[in-house]
Amino acid sequence: MDASAPLREVALECRRASRALQALPSAARVALLHRLADGLLASSDTVLAANARDVAAAEAAGLAAPLIARLRLTPAKLAALAAGARAVAALPEPLGRAQARTELASGLELTRVAAPLGVLLVIFESRPDALPQIASLVLRAADGLLLKGGKEAAESCAALHAVVAAATASEPTVGPGLVALVTGRAAVDDLLRLEDCIDLVIPRGSNALVQHIQRSTRIPVLGHADGVCHVFVHASCEPEMALHCVLDSKCDYPAACNAMETLLLHAPLIASGLAARLLDALRAAGVTLYGGPAACALLALPPAASLHEEYSALACCVEVVENTQAAIAHIHAHGSGHTECILAAPGADAEEFLAAVDAACVFHNASTRFADGARFGLGAEVGIATGRLHARGPVGIEGLMTTRWLLRGEGQVVAKDAGVTYTHVRLPLE
Amino acid sequence: MDASAPLREVALECRRASRALQALPSAARVALLHRLADGLLASSDTVLAANARDVAAAEAAGLAAPLIARLRLTPAKLAALAAGARAVAALPEPLGRAQARTELASGLELTRVAAPLGVLLVIFESRPDALPQIASLVLRAADGLLLKGGKEAAESCAALHAVVAAATASEPTVGPGLVALVTGRAAVDDLLRLEDCIDLVIPRGSNALVQHIQRSTRIPVLGHADGVCHVFVHASCEPEMALHCVLDSKCDYPAACNAMETLLLHAPLIASGLAARLLDALRAAGVTLYGGPAACALLALPPAASLHEEYSALACCVEVVENTQAAIAHIHAHGSGHTECILAAPGADAEEFLAAVDAACVFHNASTRFADGARFGLGAEVGIATGRLHARGPVGIEGLMTTRWLLRGEGQVVAKDAGVTYTHVRLPLE
Repeated sequence: MDASAPLREVALECRRASRALQALPSAARVALLHRLADGLLASSDTVLAANARDVAAAEAAGLAAPLIARLRLTPAKLAALAAGARAVAALPEPLGRAQARTELASGLELTRVAAPLGVLLVIFESRPDALPQIASLVLRAADGLLLKGGKEAAESCAALHAVVAAATASEPTVGPGLVALVTGRAAVDDLLRLEDCIDLVIPRGSNALVQHIQRSTRIPVLGHADGVCHVFVHASCEPEMALHCVLDSKCDYPAACNAMETLLLHAPLIASGLAARLLDALRAAGVTLYGGPAACALLALPPAASLHEEYSALACCVEVVENTQAAIAHIHAHGSGHTECILAAPGADAEEFLAAVDAACVFHNASTRFADGARFGLGAEVGIATGRLHARGPVGIEGLMTTRWLLRGEGQVVAKDAGVTYTHVRLPLE
Repeated sequence: MDASAPLREVALECRRASRALQALPSAARVALLHRLADGLLASSDTVLAANARDVAAAEAAGLAAPLIARLRLTPAKLAALAAGARAVAALPEPLGRAQARTELASGLELTRVAAPLGVLLVIFESRPDALPQIASLVLRAADGLLLKGGKEAAESCAALHAVVAAATASEPTVGPGLVALVTGRAAVDDLLRLEDCIDLVIPRGSNALVQHIQRSTRIPVLGHADGVCHVFVHASCEPEMALHCVLDSKCDYPAACNAMETLLLHAPLIASGLAARLLDALRAAGVTLYGGPAACALLALPPAASLHEEYSALACCVEVVENTQAAIAHIHAHGSGHTECILAAPGADAEEFLAAVDAACVFHNASTRFADGARFGLGAEVGIATGRLHARGPVGIEGLMTTRWLLRGEGQVVAKDAGVTYTHVRLPLE
C-alpha cells in the first residue's frame, strides 16, 4: 500500500472542505474568523500550558535564547493573534471580486474574478504564532490548508490547531478538516509527492529548508531562498535622512530577510565625507563591515567573502559605485530580487532606479524594513516571494487566490468567428 | 566544457536586451511593433519562398493534409500577422501600469506596477504563424524570448525570425538578440536546464510535448496538458439555444482544446425529448457518441473508454446527471479545469454553476469555443493555462508580465514599527 495514501485522504478532505467553505455566504465565512478569534481568547489557558511544555523542553535541550523567545507565547501574543484574525475578517470580501469586465459582443459579458487557489501546504519553523496567522488568511481566501510546524513547537501547534479546527467545524458542511496539521518530516516528504492534490507549497524558514523543498517537489513553491537587499546612497541625498534610513535598514532587525546586506556608496560621497559618516555610524551601532573590491581599495575595508551574502546579523558589505547605472548593474549582478533602495533627491536618478531595478520591491527614500505584508497593508503575509510568477514580494490574501473567467451569454456561438460581432468594450468594475 | 554554455550566452543576451527594451520610452517600443508589421509585409516574398520549401518537404515526407494546411503561409496570413502586430501596438501601455496604490503613512506611498516577466522560452509545433504572434506580445511586455519552432517549419521560422531580429535591431541598445531562434531538440533539453537564466517555459503543442517539458525542467511551465471541456444542458434551457451551443462547442473546430469533449444531460431532458434531439443533431453532424455509465443504460450508447478523454475529433462522451450539483461533481472528478459551460435559464442553477465550478473558464449560455485570447479581447494569446498559479485561462500580455512594488518616501524608517503612524489608505488608480 502507498504509504502516502492516508495523507492523500487528508489532502482531498482539505479540497472538499475548501469547496464547501467557498459555497458559504460571505457573512458566514467572516463569522468563522471571529469564531477563531474568540477561540484563541477562550482557549488561552490550554494554549499557554501547551506552549509552556514546548518552552521547557526547548530550554532543557539548550536551544538558543532568540529561538526560545520566538517559541514562547504570551497572553499579549494571543490577544494580538485574535485581533489579527478580526483584522483579516474586516478586509473587503476577496472571493468573486471582479478584476476586469469586458463586453465581447452584444449580450456576451466576460468577467475575471478572484477565486480560491485550492489546497496549500505551508511548512513553517519554530514560531507557533504563524499557525493562526496563516489559517486566518486561508480562511478568508477559502483555500484548504495542510500545515507542518516545527517540532520544537509541536504541543503549541496542536493546541492552536484545535482552536482552528473547532472554528471551522462550527460550519458543518466545512468541518474540522479544512486546516489539517501534519507532523513529522517523513509526512512532508510524502506530501511533496501529492502534486495532483496540492496546488502550492509555501515554506517559511531557513534557506536550507526552502532549497530542500524546491528540489523535492513538482508542486509550485512560493517563497524566497534569500534576501540580499541593497541600499544605494546617491550624492544628491539628504545626509541625515541617509544616516537614518541606512541604520534602520541594517539594524532594526538584522535577522530579517528585508534587512540591508550591502550598502552601495556613490563615489562622490567619499570626498563629501558622508561615506565616512555612514561607516562610522554603522560601526557605532555594532555593525561589522566588509568591502567589495572598490571599497577595499578606497575605504580600507576587509574584503567580503562574497558580494552575494545574507549576513542576517549586525554585519554588511560596502561597495563604491560610480553612478546610478553602476549601482543598478551591481544589484542585478549580485542581488536576490527581494528589496532594493535608493536614497537620493527626487529626480532623474531616483526615477531611473525605480523604473529599472528588477526586484520584488524597489524603494526611494524609505527603509528596506518596510518590505512586509503588514506594513504594506495586506492584512498579514504568508511570506515574501522573490520568484517572478504569480505573487511577488509580500504575499497576502491575493497571493493565495487564483482567477476564473466567467462568461455570461444568451446562447452565442463562435461559428468560425462569424457567430457574433466582437465589440471588446472594457466595462467599468462595479 | 558545458555544452549549454553558448545557449547560456544567448539567454543572458535576451535578458540584457529585454532590460534595454524596458528602458526605452513607450513610443519607441510601440514603433518596434510597427517596424515588425512593416517587415512582415516588405519581406513577404522571402518568407513565402522559405515557407514553400517547408511545404514541399512536408509533402514529400507525406505529412497529413491538416498539418500541411497549418504549415502553409499565404499573403493573406502575412497581412493578418502584420495587422496583429499593429493591434498589439494599439493596446494600452502595459509597462508600469499601476495595479494598486496605498498610502502607508504620511508621505509614504506604495504602488504595485506591472513589469516585464523576464526571459521566456516558448516551444511551439508546426504552425509558423505563432512566431510573429508571440514575438509581438513579448515585445509589448518587454520580455526576452527564446523560441523553438517545429522542424517541419524550420525555413519559415528562420525567415520570420529574421524579420523580427531586423525590427529589434533597429533600436541599437536592444539589438537582434531580444528574440532568439533555437533549433534542435538537444538545444531545448539544454535550455530547460538553465533555470537561473530563464523565467518561464511555455510549450504549445501536443499533450506529449507539454508533459515531457513539465517532467524535464525546474523552470515554471505555463500551459495545459489537456482540455476536457464539458457542456451541461439543464432542463430549464431554451432548447434551440442548447442545440446551437452544443453543436458549436463540439463541431466548430473539434481539434481545439476548447471543444466540448463531454455532454452532460440533465435527467429530465430524456423525458422531454431534448436529449434525443441533441444526440440526433450531433450524429447528423458526424459526431461519434460514447456514453458514461448512466447514459449507456438510459440512452443505449456504447461505453466510453474513459470519462476523462480529449477526443480532439468529431467524437464525444455523453453522461446523464440528476441535477446541477451532480454536474459540478462530475466536472470536478473528470474535468481538466479548462472550460466548463452550463446551458440553462438565468437563475439559481446557472449562478451556482458559475460560482462553484473550479476551472479557468466557466460559461453560461455561450459556446465553449469562446475560450480564446483573441475572442476574450486580450489582443492575442500565447496559450491557455489550466494551472492555478500566475495566469489562468487564455494568456495574453498580462500573463507575460510580473509585478513590482514601488515605495516612495521622504526618509521614513520602521524603528520597530514606531517610526511612522500607519494609515493604509487605499488610493485611486490614476
